[in-house]
Amino acid sequence: MTHPSARADETRKTWKAVLETYHEDRSTPVTPEYWSDKDTWSRDRIEAVQNEKIAAVAPFLYENSAFYRRRFDKLGVAPTDLKDGDSLIANWPIVTKQEMMEDATEHPPYGTYTTCSDEDWADRGWMLFSSSGSTGVPRVFRYTHFDRQYWEQANARALYSGGLRQGDSAIPMVGFGPHVFAWGVQYTLAKMGLPVVPGGGVDGHARASFIDRFKPTVLVCTPSYALYLGRVMQDMGMDPAATSIKWMVTGGEPFSGVSGTLERLQDLWAAKAVEFYGCTEASPHCGGYSCPEYQEGDEPFIHFMEDIQLWETVDADTLSPVADGERGLTVCTNLNSESSAQLRFLVGDYTRLSREPCACGRNHVRGLGCMTGRSDDLINLRGIKFFPVQIEEAVRAVPGTGDEFQIRLTTQDDGLDVMRVLVEHESDVADRVAKEIRSRCEIRCAVEVVTPNTLPKSEMKAKRVFDERNK
Amino acid sequence: MTHPSARADETRKTWKAVLETYHEDRSTPVTPEYWSDKDTWSRDRIEAVQNEKIAAVAPFLYENSAFYRRRFDKLGVAPTDLKDGDSLIANWPIVTKQEMMEDATEHPPYGTYTTCSDEDWADRGWMLFSSSGSTGVPRVFRYTHFDRQYWEQANARALYSGGLRQGDSAIPMVGFGPHVFAWGVQYTLAKMGLPVVPGGGVDGHARASFIDRFKPTVLVCTPSYALYLGRVMQDMGMDPAATSIKWMVTGGEPFSGVSGTLERLQDLWAAKAVEFYGCTEASPHCGGYSCPEYQEGDEPFIHFMEDIQLWETVDADTLSPVADGERGLTVCTNLNSESSAQLRFLVGDYTRLSREPCACGRNHVRGLGCMTGRSDDLINLRGIKFFPVQIEEAVRAVPGTGDEFQIRLTTQDDGLDVMRVLVEHESDVADRVAKEIRSRCEIRCAVEVVTPNTLPKSEMKAKRVFDERNK
Repeated sequence: MTHPSARADETRKTWKAVLETYHEDRSTPVTPEYWSDKDTWSRDRIEAVQNEKIAAVAPFLYENSAFYRRRFDKLGVAPTDLKDGDSLIANWPIVTKQEMMEDATEHPPYGTYTTCSDEDWADRGWMLFSSSGSTGVPRVFRYTHFDRQYWEQANARALYSGGLRQGDSAIPMVGFGPHVFAWGVQYTLAKMGLPVVPGGGVDGHARASFIDRFKPTVLVCTPSYALYLGRVMQDMGMDPAATSIKWMVTGGEPFSGVSGTLERLQDLWAAKAVEFYGCTEASPHCGGYSCPEYQEGDEPFIHFMEDIQLWETVDADTLSPVADGERGLTVCTNLNSESSAQLRFLVGDYTRLSREPCACGRNHVRGLGCMTGRSDDLINLRGIKFFPVQIEEAVRAVPGTGDEFQIRLTTQDDGLDVMRVLVEHESDVADRVAKEIRSRCEIRCAVEVVTPNTLPKSEMKAKRVFDERNK
Repeated sequence: MTHPSARADETRKTWKAVLETYHEDRSTPVTPEYWSDKDTWSRDRIEAVQNEKIAAVAPFLYENSAFYRRRFDKLGVAPTDLKDGDSLIANWPIVTKQEMMEDATEHPPYGTYTTCSDEDWADRGWMLFSSSGSTGVPRVFRYTHFDRQYWEQANARALYSGGLRQGDSAIPMVGFGPHVFAWGVQYTLAKMGLPVVPGGGVDGHARASFIDRFKPTVLVCTPSYALYLGRVMQDMGMDPAATSIKWMVTGGEPFSGVSGTLERLQDLWAAKAVEFYGCTEASPHCGGYSCPEYQEGDEPFIHFMEDIQLWETVDADTLSPVADGERGLTVCTNLNSESSAQLRFLVGDYTRLSREPCACGRNHVRGLGCMTGRSDDLINLRGIKFFPVQIEEAVRAVPGTGDEFQIRLTTQDDGLDVMRVLVEHESDVADRVAKEIRSRCEIRCAVEVVTPNTLPKSEMKAKRVFDERNK
């Protein structure tokens, strides 16, 4: 694949010039409240910038990405048909993971959605990330140095909004494999001048001892891992709530929209947990993040960074846009990358959007209720549909249950598909858990109570669903 | 600890100005052969720059590091007594790990050898590393952003000298914990614009599959791990020698001076293994590195980067300087850091120095025979002294032995200390291995032959010595 055409070059220059117009390169915030003045832009200004970016990125993708060019041609859409947010939504059908997987299967290992040629990559590539969440062919994304400068600023805006300040120090407790969350935070902490205690490649005991000795103020990990590590410390005779930890920057799994999990996490550590939400495909940086306001009424929410991404919600079945305030699946158009700009990619988490102003001063759209399960994770049991997070909420509703639980789906000899939920507890709470599940998911299931701390715990994303049904 | 004095500030400014004078900030080499023109400086120029740096760093350490100030005062040495390499060696006794450990024990967790105050660290710290090699209290070192810019250039010089070029891409296979090797290479690859496939936090099978799918050209790992991964690939039916790998950047363990290990590694991968030698204490960057010449006669060697570090060799017992060409322990004065400059730190690996010009054009001193064991690792068995690498050479000398081996030291019921060496082999080679050990170490020991691939393999530094003797 080569892209030597004059039009390819010209559209690339135009797109990079637009990006450059809005680029910041700073290690300090613009005001005590905000990392960037973009945080407080009016909605008109946000939308004007989105429109300018859409008009530049569409021809760039057409001329430089084989995947996008084929799609434009097949749909009979011209790049100039996508000139703003409205025309993008009207003319450009949603890109699904399935579509990307087919491309990656046909053109291994990278697919053709990138805008860089093989020659470009050999000359200047930077880092490779792989989608981790869903089954099927992994989709691989590479991001250049140029892109990295853009995410450092986006992530700094998110971390600063969540509350991190000069004087904080972080311990990232991740494996540093090809997962975007860890590297995005790591490079941003360096950019912000915040000290880092590298917590990769060691076990919970070593990490507990690092926290005790070096007194970092911020955990960076998945919510499951923060729960796990807290329990490890308790077993060691240490109290997580009495440590130096004041913040948890958590990604990779939904948690603040999962009733019971956020409370459990914050109680355990006596620290504030903030969201760092995104996906590998449409953003190597944080898309959704916490602000100081945090809740509307009882409902937690996150902001989306709209000057660099256009976020929508769509109906799970029709993929048509749903109105603000209605529950829908997240869709992201990434307007902050040279190598992996994307138009209307179906991220697929459920949320409800609100464009009402936030008391924090940020006018960027919010996701009310945060994230409550990715559509890929939907379980369909005998026609009844529910998400693992609903089971999680049921488990959390029974006091004294362990942090881990398992959902086991099997087919009986008589052909009936059934669910068994394993929970940890000192006493027999099977009936109570079953009742909580029934009230949330309208399904009857077997609940098995096992001895506390016997279910396996994972260091990255927790594996809690075991589907062993006959296909 | 605070350092508010005018002299502290003034000496810091002077030291940083000297550092700045020689700082480069580049992503590309100055010529096709050399990353930096410092590589080909004359010895006179190298020594003049060393002298200039020593004269500036000595007062800086006196005024800004509690550890150094106490030592100057106790020794009755004035900072101005250290004005060049000769006066440094004449007036400043060697700093040992023991001395640093005592300081770290008395002032946990960091000791007082840094030149940054607690306030400085809270404001701008960057990353923490911990000594891993020896027993005892871990000595912890923090390096600032300012320092990182200096290592990126030092490491780029080393990697470029080893042969890495634009178009190469790397897979670091390390845990990304607080070990300086991995992070130093990681940040430098980014600086050099070389693509990275992040290989942290996954197992050998996943790494083998990354190599197969993404075709990186450079492994970054310990020599033991490169051997281990090659065997994993063979078990998976893949041939490491047929992969995309052309280079191995290896650190953390001696290997190119260990007869048999280098050959085994290069044969397995059909790739060139280059050294990336250093220590946490006196340098967060590469001190010793390979050049295209690689061997003098049959003897491998590495260069030391002398404009930023002064390297010496000393007698193991007296710690007095030994002449060039004589075997001695490495000592490093680090002249390339704000936060962790060090004067005459006993790194403690054995080598022989040569200041003869090298055919590669680099005039920086060389370590002939590379490194052959750190003095901390010396085994004393019934008064006979030898290094684990001597056992390693004996094992490698017998064809068909597995990559791993173990040295087990125990005390018999009659009070006699004995050694048992475990090797992997298809047939009974116990006598041959015992003979090879006897000829190298002048010691008789039991050799036990176990089934191939049954000795445990570690992902980072291999643990091969198990000392269970009565104390």
